[in-house]
Formats: sequence, C-alpha cells, structure tokens
Amino acid sequence: MTMDSVGLRVLSRAECVALLATTPIGRIVFTDRALPAVQPVGFALDGETVVIRTGADTRLAAAARDTVVAFEADEFDRAGRTGWSVTAIGHARAVTEPAEIERLSRLPLQRWVPGGRDHFIVLPIEHISGRMIGTHP
Amino acid sequence: MTMDSVGLRVLSRAECVALLATTPIGRIVFTDRALPAVQPVGFALDGETVVIRTGADTRLAAAARDTVVAFEADEFDRAGRTGWSVTAIGHARAVTEPAEIERLSRLPLQRWVPGGRDHFIVLPIEHISGRMIGTHP
Repeated sequence: MTMDSVGLRVLSRAECVALLATTPIGRIVFTDRALPAVQPVGFALDGETVVIRTGADTRLAAAARDTVVAFEADEFDRAGRTGWSVTAIGHARAVTEPAEIERLSRLPLQRWVPGGRDHFIVLPIEHISGRMIGTHP
Repeated sequence: MTMDSVGLRVLSRAECVALLATTPIGRIVFTDRALPAVQPVGFALDGETVVIRTGADTRLAAAARDTVVAFEADEFDRAGRTGWSVTAIGHARAVTEPAEIERLSRLPLQRWVPGGRDHFIVLPIEHISGRMIGTHP
C-alpha cells in the first residue's frame, strides 16, 4: 500500500478506473479565456476513455476541442470522513465520425440537463491518479 | 429567473455564496507544471473569502501561491436528478501574517486528511457563478 506525502492512500490505475465507473458525474477542468474553469458533467466510460455528451455550441464544447483537459470525480462520506478522488488527464477531442457517434450513443449516459446533446467529447485517459481517505487509518 | 443557453437556472451571487456555505468540501483548480489540475479540499468561508488549510510543502500550496485559481463546489441528488454547482474565481495567496493565521485558525475548518495543516491559503472571491439543475423543470 503506497501513501502520499500527506498520508493518503495512493490508488493504482486499475483502482482509479474502477472507481470512476461507479459514479455518473464528474468535473471537467479546462481553460476558458485564459482562466481556469470547471464544469460538472454526466459521463460514461468507454473502456479507458471518458465520454461526455454536450450541446455543440456550449462553452465546454468550444473549450475542450483538441486540448489537454483534466477530469475529476470523487465521493465523500461526511459522517465517516471517508472518500476518494480520481483525476484523469488526457487530450480531449470532439467526435465527428458518424459510426463512432452511433456507437457512443448507446452508452449509458445519463441526461442531467435539458437542451441539445448532440455533441460527443471523448477523453482517452493518458494519466490517471487517485487518493483514498479514511479507510485505512 | 434567468436561464442559461442549456436551460439551467443561473444563480445570483448571493445564492452562490449561500450554497457554498452549505458544504465543507470543494475542489480547487489550478495549473501544475503547465497541466490542468484539480484537488478536493476542505474549506470554510470567511465572509466572501474561501479559506483552505494545507501543509506548507504540498503541491497545492506551491501551485496556489499568488495565482488565479478556480474553486468549485457542487451537490447532486442522483435519484431526483437535481443539483447545483458553484464556481468562484480569485487570486489565491498564502497567509503569512501571524494575526491573520490566528484568526483563520478559529474557522470551522474540518480536518479530512492527516499530516501538517499549518498553511492557510485564502481566495477572495472576485467572480462567482452557479447553476441549478432540476428544481424548476
């Protein structure tokens, strides 16, 4: 078991991917007009690729086109002071190939917000890291 | 009531600050070696300033020194498909003045992780925005 400098357990890549698969919402971190920006998004995993569905004309769609972004998900239990956090880094790209759009459309992506959702962004995970709090005191 | 381009309700500054005050955990978004980075942190509000306590030698302490960062908090109810998200932007700075450290030490900052927590970072909110999902269908 590996611990980091502040005493949190360092998760393996497999543990990180498995935890990501347990939650339907994450946060995409990008740069918007030279400022750090973060937006919660519903997502699904396609193997080790994060898949996000959004409107084609959104700030997110514009910002996450062919650029390196971070994607974070976490869960915390306030009462038990336990939790985990996973951050993936990868090069986001918009999906334009009709066959790929058709395939991604069948993923179990939850619909959280109204509006057009005809645009897919995929983020193949290049680097992933995670920490767990509180389960191994 | 203002709606954004995807049909989410736009929260006022007062609503955003009030929602931030309801949760003890947020995520700080910064740049780490030219890559986007995000890290969950326990925090407290001191008026309209986000206060974070961390170890002096952490990646977060190094990255959030005199730089513009984003701070995000959210809550989602998976079953009801409701939730909110608030993002604040501001210029983070390390607190070095002993009187200010003494004052901030009395804030109700929850201790989530082990290790040294002798370093305060403050983020006076310069810009704040938020969205609410699902309560006004």
